[in-house]
Amino acid sequence: MRRITLLTDFGTADGYVAAMKGVLATRAPGVVLEDAGHDLPRGDVAHAAWTLGRFWTRFPRGTVHLVVVDPGVGTERAALAVEAEGLFLVGPDNGVFSPVYASGRRWEAVRLPVPEDASSSFHGRDVFAPAAAELASGAALDSLGPPVPDPVRFPADDAPAGAGRVRTVDRFGNLVTDLAGADLSDAAGVEIAGRTVPVAETYGAVAPGALLALVGSDGTVEVAARDASAAALLRVGAGAPVRLV
Amino acid sequence: MRRITLLTDFGTADGYVAAMKGVLATRAPGVVLEDAGHDLPRGDVAHAAWTLGRFWTRFPRGTVHLVVVDPGVGTERAALAVEAEGLFLVGPDNGVFSPVYASGRRWEAVRLPVPEDASSSFHGRDVFAPAAAELASGAALDSLGPPVPDPVRFPADDAPAGAGRVRTVDRFGNLVTDLAGADLSDAAGVEIAGRTVPVAETYGAVAPGALLALVGSDGTVEVAARDASAAALLRVGAGAPVRLV
Amino acid sequence: MRRITLLTDFGTADGYVAAMKGVLATRAPGVVLEDAGHDLPRGDVAHAAWTLGRFWTRFPRGTVHLVVVDPGVGTERAALAVEAEGLFLVGPDNGVFSPVYASGRRWEAVRLPVPEDASSSFHGRDVFAPAAAELASGAALDSLGPPVPDPVRFPADDAPAGAGRVRTVDRFGNLVTDLAGADLSDAAGVEIAGRTVPVAETYGAVAPGALLALVGSDGTVEVAARDASAAALLRVGAGAPVRLV
Repeated sequence: MRRITLLTDFGTADGYVAAMKGVLATRAPGVVLEDAGHDLPRGDVAHAAWTLGRFWTRFPRGTVHLVVVDPGVGTERAALAVEAEGLFLVGPDNGVFSPVYASGRRWEAVRLPVPEDASSSFHGRDVFAPAAAELASGAALDSLGPPVPDPVRFPADDAPAGAGRVRTVDRFGNLVTDLAGADLSDAAGVEIAGRTVPVAETYGAVAPGALLALVGSDGTVEVAARDASAAALLRVGAGAPVRLV
Repeated sequence: MRRITLLTDFGTADGYVAAMKGVLATRAPGVVLEDAGHDLPRGDVAHAAWTLGRFWTRFPRGTVHLVVVDPGVGTERAALAVEAEGLFLVGPDNGVFSPVYASGRRWEAVRLPVPEDASSSFHGRDVFAPAAAELASGAALDSLGPPVPDPVRFPADDAPAGAGRVRTVDRFGNLVTDLAGADLSDAAGVEIAGRTVPVAETYGAVAPGALLALVGSDGTVEVAARDASAAALLRVGAGAPVRLV
Repeated sequence: MRRITLLTDFGTADGYVAAMKGVLATRAPGVVLEDAGHDLPRGDVAHAAWTLGRFWTRFPRGTVHLVVVDPGVGTERAALAVEAEGLFLVGPDNGVFSPVYASGRRWEAVRLPVPEDASSSFHGRDVFAPAAAELASGAALDSLGPPVPDPVRFPADDAPAGAGRVRTVDRFGNLVTDLAGADLSDAAGVEIAGRTVPVAETYGAVAPGALLALVGSDGTVEVAARDASAAALLRVGAGAPVRLV
């Protein structure tokens, strides 16, 4: 059973995702479609990259991840298909695949042609979905277009050890940082927004409403609050500096 | 692989969609269910019709589209199943299938019986899902009920050539009009909300934040803004008049 | 075709649901995944229980319902798998399975072990999804852990006959109560928020905007408003007392 996942910022009120699914169902009739999420913040490529990083390696070999967070549609940005050790990704060349390039896996990328009759504002339907269907149907990556040796990627920060930033805030108000979780065992706390948040192993170790720093489910340091939103309590969001103390 | 798509205004927080899926999975065990969207504006049949128009023909023959935006449930409105050249649709007779009747495809509609024990407020589960399951399992349309020769449909506007209205606003704030895209090539701009928006082929042709009029992905004229919401910039919504200049 | 449904309060903007789907697709490759809903109010176990009650018995035998509304993750709360006459449920032991225990079906529950390397904040991915995959692949319930004879459940109210409460409010503003629908036939109305709402069989029996009390699609009494929100008109929510008059 081959699967194509769909990750977009289209929402589901307008039928754009359904149009992509129709193209996929027509061109890859035996393939199963899985919604990865469509409520991503509009045009927020960095958030989309982080979200993709949470799940893309969890799927079995042969899965195609179709990612359309594409504020640059209708500009000169390239359309990409990427293969990384048996997993495939299709979407715009805007940095959204940064976690793939940073994963340590071998990868190759190719540039997808844009058909003459493609809508200039909906490459998800007219460029990316057809390519995802081809890959899910067994096409070889290099049959889809010429190689792209140096796709767009987000720069890695050159932060001093023990210092970093909030990378993303999830629905629960957890502040997900880029600090390595392994470093937390030697720390007494995490400095953020002028406060020092104590380290704890689990939510259960602190009182309801209290802040804690723990190793999050992505393996990096998270600042959270039991039964509450750390983002609301600390009034910070993505980009806020954090430091181990 | 037969597919049933689901388009509703139920949201997914209450379990109504899941109840429909349970009925479908029980009555059509080998059929694949595809969410088309559940966050449609509540009771907005015109928006639902436009949304359906975006995707229904993109799916392969044999697909059943189950559409439940049904503010008239519990009134005398009929329950319908429709066939249009190998595609099926099931839902209330309230105009939501207008794009089907206007498509130029041959179509037939039948009136579904409402079982004695159907909930008066949830035909999605008790009337429409069972009919969709039957059609996906191969039942003939005319085995489901008597013909409905003249179902409810939204009237076509008698607008003068080059004049029309905003039909729907999507999540990005794009203003989708009913002006034929082909007419845009002879126009200098689109008049809307007291302003004249220039024509451009793609987002990339204008500066970030600027308004443009382009042929949208549905083939009609759209008024959009690069990296911004045209609806917010112009403070207009569905119904606003537009004119080619 | 075996199905696993997913019901969470994760939203779909962060990739948590997609991570669970990846685990399921890898460990139960032939199983079909169905979204039951991910927009549940955060941490609201009572709402989640009511939502689950709406659909869990509608699915065919062999279905696994994976429910992760889990504000106690990282505390001592147990992880459960439950079997009830051929249907399976996996999730936290926090009362969310109350409708299963109250259903009159025979049921058994077992306690799932938590692997050493499980994230302390994401049992959905590391504890519940693997167990759901095992059950969907045919594992016997008692192979997953030791029996839990007395799982957490919400207490039944000892309300006098004809008196009850609003249990949940859906997206349409309908007030779903725990009053037995069968008792409505002898009543003249429902007292709520200092008003008496008249009984009607269907929405169609009252004027647009008017309140009515009817037998809802769950079989209990609902207070609703035609083309409007009863919750907004009456300014009440879950917990509000109701009484037949």
